[in-house]
Amino acid sequence: MHISHDSLSQLERRYRAQLINSLSGFKSANLIGTQDTFGRTNLAIISSVFHLGADPALVGFISRPDTVQRDTLANIIATGSYTINQVNSDIWQQAHQTSARYDSGQCEFNEVGLTPLHQPQVVAPFVAESRLKYAVKLESYQTIELNQTLLVIGRITDIWLDDVALNPDGNIDIESLNTVCVSGLDCYHTTERLGRLSYAKPDKPSVIID
Amino acid sequence: MHISHDSLSQLERRYRAQLINSLSGFKSANLIGTQDTFGRTNLAIISSVFHLGADPALVGFISRPDTVQRDTLANIIATGSYTINQVNSDIWQQAHQTSARYDSGQCEFNEVGLTPLHQPQVVAPFVAESRLKYAVKLESYQTIELNQTLLVIGRITDIWLDDVALNPDGNIDIESLNTVCVSGLDCYHTTERLGRLSYAKPDKPSVIID
Repeated sequence: MHISHDSLSQLERRYRAQLINSLSGFKSANLIGTQDTFGRTNLAIISSVFHLGADPALVGFISRPDTVQRDTLANIIATGSYTINQVNSDIWQQAHQTSARYDSGQCEFNEVGLTPLHQPQVVAPFVAESRLKYAVKLESYQTIELNQTLLVIGRITDIWLDDVALNPDGNIDIESLNTVCVSGLDCYHTTERLGRLSYAKPDKPSVIID
Repeated sequence: MHISHDSLSQLERRYRAQLINSLSGFKSANLIGTQDTFGRTNLAIISSVFHLGADPALVGFISRPDTVQRDTLANIIATGSYTINQVNSDIWQQAHQTSARYDSGQCEFNEVGLTPLHQPQVVAPFVAESRLKYAVKLESYQTIELNQTLLVIGRITDIWLDDVALNPDGNIDIESLNTVCVSGLDCYHTTERLGRLSYAKPDKPSVIID
């Protein structure tokens, strides 16, 4: 089936959003925790968190300033601090519910039934129910001129995880933590491992190492 | 288990790469097809493709100019054309093998055993074995100054997919196409659907719609 350039441009807005959001493949499911300068907490699910580099340890996400992510962004800019908390299959429905347009005065933790957790020296709150979470310090943000979204980049400082998931080589078995992924705008999935593959070299095929 | 800022900075390079690559959550698995101005094809697996916006239909990925992705980037800049092809569970090992450092003269399609497919009016080759693929026109690229990676943004033009996967509301059931996802540097996974959730509203909990 071929969807041409011309037919793409004529799609109804919501149909188009569903379709285009499905194209990039599976997306990460993370809750971003923040706090304003009065100590009021905020929590938002984001499916656009992506790895940017290991040294320095950088992580990026895309934010739309005109949506429910407005408080998240304002808090990050005001405090320089946020947390990223992987969503697992015990909390996927609460996590999705954070995308509702709550008023600025409403706390998503309370509204959806997740527990804020504070750690020393980190302003932003963590999600207690998340089994892999880390503190992030804002490094930069810039507008993507093509569509006025914002690319937010931060540096990973402290990590908390269930130690059962940490493999001897540093890889984290996030499947064992029941971390979920997202497709399209609203579909959530658990995973089943095919395998880890050895570092690819031109002269021999990769093999399954685990 | 807590990995502190200080201990993070002292990790051995490869351990650190495995660890930090696991933090963002599940990643998309896509093959990017390109062609140079002499018509020589190139194919590279990329786990950093992300949705950037539906209208205009934009997709981004992160490229490291000093690696095996060098040919991909040079071809995209030279021709303005590339294809993104979702990796499925029939071709995940061949897809991984494209990350080997083949010489510029070697064609990854031949080396790993995937089939280039040309479509009218698209310079770059598609992967015949991929069941969801689309043509992309380069819109912009910029260096992320924090680590010298490149953010490459393109506009989605034409889409080809197995029509069994297209839901009535525009959502594509990429799980039914056996699209895989990636965790860390080298682990591949199939998925199992938890469900689609209704659009979240403050006054009532989301429900499973499919």
